[in-house]
Amino acid sequence: MSGHLALHGIMNLCPLRSATKTRVCRKGVVIYLAEKLKIIPIGGLNEIGKNMTVLEYGKDMIVIDCGIAFPEEDMYGVDLVIPDVTYLVKNAKKLRGFFITHGHEDHIGSVPYVLQAVNAPIHGTRLTNGLIELKLEEHKLKDKVKLITHKPGDVVQAGCFGVEFIHVNHSIADAVAFAIKTPVGNIVMTGDFKIDPTDSEGMMDLTRLGELGKEGVLALLCDSTNVERQGFTTSEMSVADNLDRQFKNCDQRIIITTFASNLHRIQSVLQTAHRYGRKVAVTGRSMENMLKVASELDYIKIPANTLIDLAQIKSLPKNKVVVVSTGSQGENMSALYRMAFSNHKQIDIQPGDRIIISASAIPGNEKAVSRIINELYRKGADVVHDKSEGLHASGHACQEELKIIHALTKPKYFIPVHGEQRHLQKHAQLAKMMGMSPKRILVADIGNVIECTSKTCKLTENTVTAGSVFVDGTGVGDVGAVVLRDRRHLAQDGMIVVCVNLSADDGELVTGPDIITRGFVHVKENEDLIEAMRMICLEALFTCQNKGITDWATIKAAMKGDLSNFLYKNTRRNPMILPVIMEV
Amino acid sequence: MSGHLALHGIMNLCPLRSATKTRVCRKGVVIYLAEKLKIIPIGGLNEIGKNMTVLEYGKDMIVIDCGIAFPEEDMYGVDLVIPDVTYLVKNAKKLRGFFITHGHEDHIGSVPYVLQAVNAPIHGTRLTNGLIELKLEEHKLKDKVKLITHKPGDVVQAGCFGVEFIHVNHSIADAVAFAIKTPVGNIVMTGDFKIDPTDSEGMMDLTRLGELGKEGVLALLCDSTNVERQGFTTSEMSVADNLDRQFKNCDQRIIITTFASNLHRIQSVLQTAHRYGRKVAVTGRSMENMLKVASELDYIKIPANTLIDLAQIKSLPKNKVVVVSTGSQGENMSALYRMAFSNHKQIDIQPGDRIIISASAIPGNEKAVSRIINELYRKGADVVHDKSEGLHASGHACQEELKIIHALTKPKYFIPVHGEQRHLQKHAQLAKMMGMSPKRILVADIGNVIECTSKTCKLTENTVTAGSVFVDGTGVGDVGAVVLRDRRHLAQDGMIVVCVNLSADDGELVTGPDIITRGFVHVKENEDLIEAMRMICLEALFTCQNKGITDWATIKAAMKGDLSNFLYKNTRRNPMILPVIMEV
Repeated sequence: MSGHLALHGIMNLCPLRSATKTRVCRKGVVIYLAEKLKIIPIGGLNEIGKNMTVLEYGKDMIVIDCGIAFPEEDMYGVDLVIPDVTYLVKNAKKLRGFFITHGHEDHIGSVPYVLQAVNAPIHGTRLTNGLIELKLEEHKLKDKVKLITHKPGDVVQAGCFGVEFIHVNHSIADAVAFAIKTPVGNIVMTGDFKIDPTDSEGMMDLTRLGELGKEGVLALLCDSTNVERQGFTTSEMSVADNLDRQFKNCDQRIIITTFASNLHRIQSVLQTAHRYGRKVAVTGRSMENMLKVASELDYIKIPANTLIDLAQIKSLPKNKVVVVSTGSQGENMSALYRMAFSNHKQIDIQPGDRIIISASAIPGNEKAVSRIINELYRKGADVVHDKSEGLHASGHACQEELKIIHALTKPKYFIPVHGEQRHLQKHAQLAKMMGMSPKRILVADIGNVIECTSKTCKLTENTVTAGSVFVDGTGVGDVGAVVLRDRRHLAQDGMIVVCVNLSADDGELVTGPDIITRGFVHVKENEDLIEAMRMICLEALFTCQNKGITDWATIKAAMKGDLSNFLYKNTRRNPMILPVIMEV
Repeated sequence: MSGHLALHGIMNLCPLRSATKTRVCRKGVVIYLAEKLKIIPIGGLNEIGKNMTVLEYGKDMIVIDCGIAFPEEDMYGVDLVIPDVTYLVKNAKKLRGFFITHGHEDHIGSVPYVLQAVNAPIHGTRLTNGLIELKLEEHKLKDKVKLITHKPGDVVQAGCFGVEFIHVNHSIADAVAFAIKTPVGNIVMTGDFKIDPTDSEGMMDLTRLGELGKEGVLALLCDSTNVERQGFTTSEMSVADNLDRQFKNCDQRIIITTFASNLHRIQSVLQTAHRYGRKVAVTGRSMENMLKVASELDYIKIPANTLIDLAQIKSLPKNKVVVVSTGSQGENMSALYRMAFSNHKQIDIQPGDRIIISASAIPGNEKAVSRIINELYRKGADVVHDKSEGLHASGHACQEELKIIHALTKPKYFIPVHGEQRHLQKHAQLAKMMGMSPKRILVADIGNVIECTSKTCKLTENTVTAGSVFVDGTGVGDVGAVVLRDRRHLAQDGMIVVCVNLSADDGELVTGPDIITRGFVHVKENEDLIEAMRMICLEALFTCQNKGITDWATIKAAMKGDLSNFLYKNTRRNPMILPVIMEV
């Protein structure tokens, strides 16, 4: 603890743990020098995903969310990206708990990795914890992590922090925002949210946010994902109405894909199917898992005699069948992908099948989704994917909803979170437009330290370790910048191995150079080129010998340099060249 | 010529060249057995780009367009994709010419490659030919290819085909559609188009299309790119109005990026700048080239004293400067990219710079564009990129425009072109909705042969060679499926070379195994793993020796197999493994 001190007058909020306090007297008023609250984004700023925010005061620290990000397209071979939690590990003793807003991967995905590095109780709602439990089971960590379940309205005391769970709407059930009472004031973290007055769980608790606004909110940390979109997000109920239209008068099979975690959507599909006398089968592992958890925890109501096994659909008439499938993002080997490419064991796409894409492509997935849509069309399916059909609603607040949250919470300071720079800046503009002084808007980056007293929040010059750790297979962190640079090089033009045996006695060539290439050219059709490459290496070797050079590193560099120049001149390519010298 | 014969009554249209004709008599009417017209899409169907269509009749053949496609994201290292023109090469003697609709890369980009394989005159409009000429110069082919320039209204006789140039609107000037008089009837190929009544070149020639409709159109081949979009495409004039709004009251530098070929847009920028007393500088090679060609050919009118050299902008006040830049698709090392990443020699982005993205991201480029936008925001620039600002208009017809073309040309048969399967099918639906019988709508693929008599068009079972040829550096076609598979494998998990020296006398191990990895793991932090890999290979080698195996292929397979299993078990990764055995 570096002990940044600040002036503020509230000392009783943290009587047990407050650290360094000094009584001073100014103009006759007794005030106290006390700790500052630190707000430290560890992930989720200037990026999409890997959400994690630290709140720290004196000897106490809590962490909000613990998500993953998906790899960028040039992070070859990387499966997941998790936050660098060096700072949590260093401060493990202070850590009073993890608080999770909802069960999406970008908020819970890192739990199995982070909790191995630094253990503390996890606080979440029932569904969120149910989904975390699944992950912990997979990673054989179930007995090692304490999961504590709460409901909206609950307040959890974690060190000096009083964390209140507040119901919000989102594209997964049981999502919450947090209002955190800290020694310097109230902090509101919205998590991902939208305002849906027709949500079956009830509209998000605007009243409570308004009450907090009246009590006083020191800082608002608010979701920025959809800040570029005007107006309001579509409600799930209007999606349900549009779904109904797709079922009406359809006498063919209906295959529908959406995010597995969107239980409201799946509930709508189940109800609509039931209304039209159709049975519903489910395909895709994440969809099956989600349905299992959700029905066990009562988050989804399956109408009687509606859910059937996938194997049964063949015995039913086409107009009695609905299949709910994974693959809405075009994921390789997802159920819908396998159907599209005739690779699904139980379902053959047939002409006339109505396939409903009840999702929009996350940026970066457009092409993958399009590839599936094309294949489905090719099989004669009736693919419904147009935005104009209104078959998807985003889970994130658009501009008008964001304005409502700003107006209700009336924060002294505003920290836009969950978004790339463009989103954070746009959200800052929105706050400015709402009348907030630019000085009170803090556009931060991960690793930045924001220090708050009861009067001010300030983006300091201090930083803590923050960044990306790559998960590849079972390896966590063993793939970094150098490995990725090599993978990109290999991907671009392939590679060439040059093997040479030199005599241990006199350094004379014994065998070689042998040339092996992969990913460079069709070898069989380019034998002349390969032979020319051999000659270039041989010449480089002889030149070295004539100069009396015996140092292997120099010989390797000579072969590599000459070969590289030759290849660039002749092919405009730059494959990775690996000279290998062995001594015999 | 395989000589598919058909019954039809029109023989005089092709008096000189008509091939096999037989007089037959049916019910007292003299009719003739004659050639069928073949329409063969070589590229541009079930893909975006690489547009090329063959029309063939008897001993005559013409080719419409000669484009490239951009590589898919998993085509590592590939620079361009060009059509496989085996069929043209086989039929080179028949080839009467290439007809080019407009100067975009997906319509002209393959000219330097294809014309080396099969030479014939190229017919295009002035700007189109100007752009082709640039390409031919670059490839040192200018003297080898005959370029013939025409204007809308011209009819070119090429063998039995009478090719009429018809003015259309598009996001590049001087674009045309073709109406082709063939021995069996009129074929209309729209090329890329939209209907813009406010185009400075005049609205596309709907009248001529209507006249053709009255004369009779046997088949319409129509652009499908924007068929998923409702309504009409925005006009360039409304974009110009919206641009004006961005200039008004802006007292900062304006930097604007768009497609270099969109001369109308650049013209609007020049005029708006002039109106507001700003000077315009240009950055980015393709933008500079385009402006040079366009102003030489008089396709752009540069207001007096408006264009300045980039070096001069520093001496001007901020509110007197406009920079027109490449990089609207987020291209690596484009001018805007270099500005965003502080890598541009002459322009530093300064807080307050207004940066206008007057383009939308082509599918697949969203992330690249977003990366630039984020960096520009980070530098404090005022980035204007929202769709709602109306700063871009697509060059392709939306649904209502497509309906107008169908209604005007009243084709007997319809062949949707220029699009993925989803677009072709959607366009087929649109035609059906317009009252066309599904039997008269031919959704084809590249390599398909459509045969037409004066009465019918039929998608036959016949196919010709068609597909993709990859250009990588100077290599054309030397990178294929195997090389790409290897590149993907290398990209995924990197590679491992295992080198072993065996004695020529007895096959005993002399030196090795030496292990070299690239793109697999951080070697320095994983020395134990590397040593374990060495031991696995050594064991595999000894096992072979104990079994008396001396065959190198078997020894290599043993080392590779054991190492691969070991690595998958321990890391869940599957690097490429290259065992190298040398004999000493």
